[in-house]
Amino acid sequence: MDLDLLISELVSGKTAALARAISIVENMRPGFERLLGELHRSLGRARRIGITGPPGAGKSTLVERLVSHYRSSGFKVGVIAVDPTSPFTGGALLGDRIRMESIALDTGVYIRSMASRGSLGGLATTTREVCDLLDAAGFDRILVETVGVGQSELDVARMADSTVLVLVPESGDGIQTLKSGVMEIADIFAVNKADRSGADKLRQEIEVTLGIRRGNAFRNVPAHHGRAIGVSDRRRVGVSEDDVLGGTASSAPPPLRSSAWEQPVVLTSAVKGDGVADLVAALDRHHDWLVASGELDQRRRRRLMERTREVVDRATRKWLWEETRAERLINDRLDEVAGGEVSPYELAQDVLEELKQGEKI
Amino acid sequence: MDLDLLISELVSGKTAALARAISIVENMRPGFERLLGELHRSLGRARRIGITGPPGAGKSTLVERLVSHYRSSGFKVGVIAVDPTSPFTGGALLGDRIRMESIALDTGVYIRSMASRGSLGGLATTTREVCDLLDAAGFDRILVETVGVGQSELDVARMADSTVLVLVPESGDGIQTLKSGVMEIADIFAVNKADRSGADKLRQEIEVTLGIRRGNAFRNVPAHHGRAIGVSDRRRVGVSEDDVLGGTASSAPPPLRSSAWEQPVVLTSAVKGDGVADLVAALDRHHDWLVASGELDQRRRRRLMERTREVVDRATRKWLWEETRAERLINDRLDEVAGGEVSPYELAQDVLEELKQGEKI
Repeated sequence: MDLDLLISELVSGKTAALARAISIVENMRPGFERLLGELHRSLGRARRIGITGPPGAGKSTLVERLVSHYRSSGFKVGVIAVDPTSPFTGGALLGDRIRMESIALDTGVYIRSMASRGSLGGLATTTREVCDLLDAAGFDRILVETVGVGQSELDVARMADSTVLVLVPESGDGIQTLKSGVMEIADIFAVNKADRSGADKLRQEIEVTLGIRRGNAFRNVPAHHGRAIGVSDRRRVGVSEDDVLGGTASSAPPPLRSSAWEQPVVLTSAVKGDGVADLVAALDRHHDWLVASGELDQRRRRRLMERTREVVDRATRKWLWEETRAERLINDRLDEVAGGEVSPYELAQDVLEELKQGEKI
Repeated sequence: MDLDLLISELVSGKTAALARAISIVENMRPGFERLLGELHRSLGRARRIGITGPPGAGKSTLVERLVSHYRSSGFKVGVIAVDPTSPFTGGALLGDRIRMESIALDTGVYIRSMASRGSLGGLATTTREVCDLLDAAGFDRILVETVGVGQSELDVARMADSTVLVLVPESGDGIQTLKSGVMEIADIFAVNKADRSGADKLRQEIEVTLGIRRGNAFRNVPAHHGRAIGVSDRRRVGVSEDDVLGGTASSAPPPLRSSAWEQPVVLTSAVKGDGVADLVAALDRHHDWLVASGELDQRRRRRLMERTREVVDRATRKWLWEETRAERLINDRLDEVAGGEVSPYELAQDVLEELKQGEKI
């Protein structure tokens, strides 16, 4: 297929073109880098939202609710479920995906699962590139949900404009079980299954911990419990969607604190649909802050830097194994390695030395 | 510290030297490749055993039992717990490690956790290198346990001589929940918590599935249930430890089928200690088969190939980012990327072109 035609169909929002483009990118088929390169200029419209949290926190249901909410506001929504493929969790995932099919018939929604096995170039990189495709195809909100557990949570946080950390009361030891660094990845906390006992306790725990980290343990704990804070308790910053899209946020009043974002804790019950509007409001507020503080530009710039590094890494590896003599050199001398005459490290050093000589290798 | 002194202390079995060597390798400190290269010749004594399975299968307890069993036979045992660092599982892991401290006071046992965060060169590669250090330090058995979930299971299977897949009756849907490819990584199945109801059913399920794959659905199901098969039901191959270590397995009678290994299913109850001797016997039998069939040599050769590739990859990346102008080129032109004049892909291509010119970059 003609790449230019594919691009023009993709940009005009044709679903078949999107699916085809994703397949090309996932499988690193010829032209995938040109495809992504050509789309580079048309990116930046979509808001990228990461949804992460431990297994069983209800992330999928929450994502489904967010999708419905955004759809009712007229936005096109893309969903990417990132699954770093545990060999042992086939059952649960299937259930999640079937549930999601209730919204999958809507052409304003595009759902895609990303598993490490389908991704030759590294799961995180490919996920970011599929986000680009959805962005270019005109999706307004891209929700990236981590399905599995592992490194993916942190990778998702690094690629999103806003990251929601979903926790549930029954996770037992509360936030003490979170490893260090996890609380920092959250722009917004969602205490899901908030109708269960312990929800308020968990919310307070989070708020106190956040307060201590800001050197102000108690200011952030509201006297009245049981409500979402950070949304209804605070004046929303009055930036309209158009202002944000056009990048002209100057008419907006400054956020309460332009230098720091105070992570709100929102109570939700995804199954019942409670608190979803609050979560959306918190996300809007975070986006407004990102724009007003200049943080959005900085985050996107940082991501471009990382992306370029990743692409260089990937292209270098491809060159190394497909265009140089490296593979053959190793094959030819494997007997020496197996016989103990040469170590893998010495052989690798020899290969690298040849590589440094440049293209003649 | 003098590297040669470190190596001689390591090879003579000094624990402090081992700990220091591991730290050097994990952090890729200067000399780490020479250290590993020098040890290359003295490897191959240890048997590397992977223990994998879903969370909650009782892997840690089983590993602890195996350690005790091997210790009572006079073997030195190394344990590596591979944790791909889920940010959400801090609690459970801590519990596992505390339990293991019951055996940690024994100087014939060395326990080490490997987490992705501590590993600059990739978790799988570094784990293999730490196995090498334990091997060189005179450990007879190296147990590599996957603590987290994810890709690590498959990586562990690829680095072990023998891989034990631990399953439990209550995992619900039984082996149907295993993703494709998982059953194939197991050399031995351990049905743990075998005192619970459903253990026999799970064992039969595994055996039937294995039988079908061999094109012989029922031969493998014994008439009498409730016992480990593959061990007590079959004649053990008479290769002694000395034969194996010296690589002179020619005196041993041929295994029942030299071309194929029939994966046995062993019932264990790690908490009670039941079935551990059967599991050890199955592991011994598998090792004998590996030697007699030539598969051990093939697996180790394949691993040397993979290792060399990994080391080349890592060394190339180090060269790319630390010794070439790549990083500076990207920094210098990031404004163009952010401004949309150049895409990350075009910039990466430019960097790669310079790289191909060789060392002058």
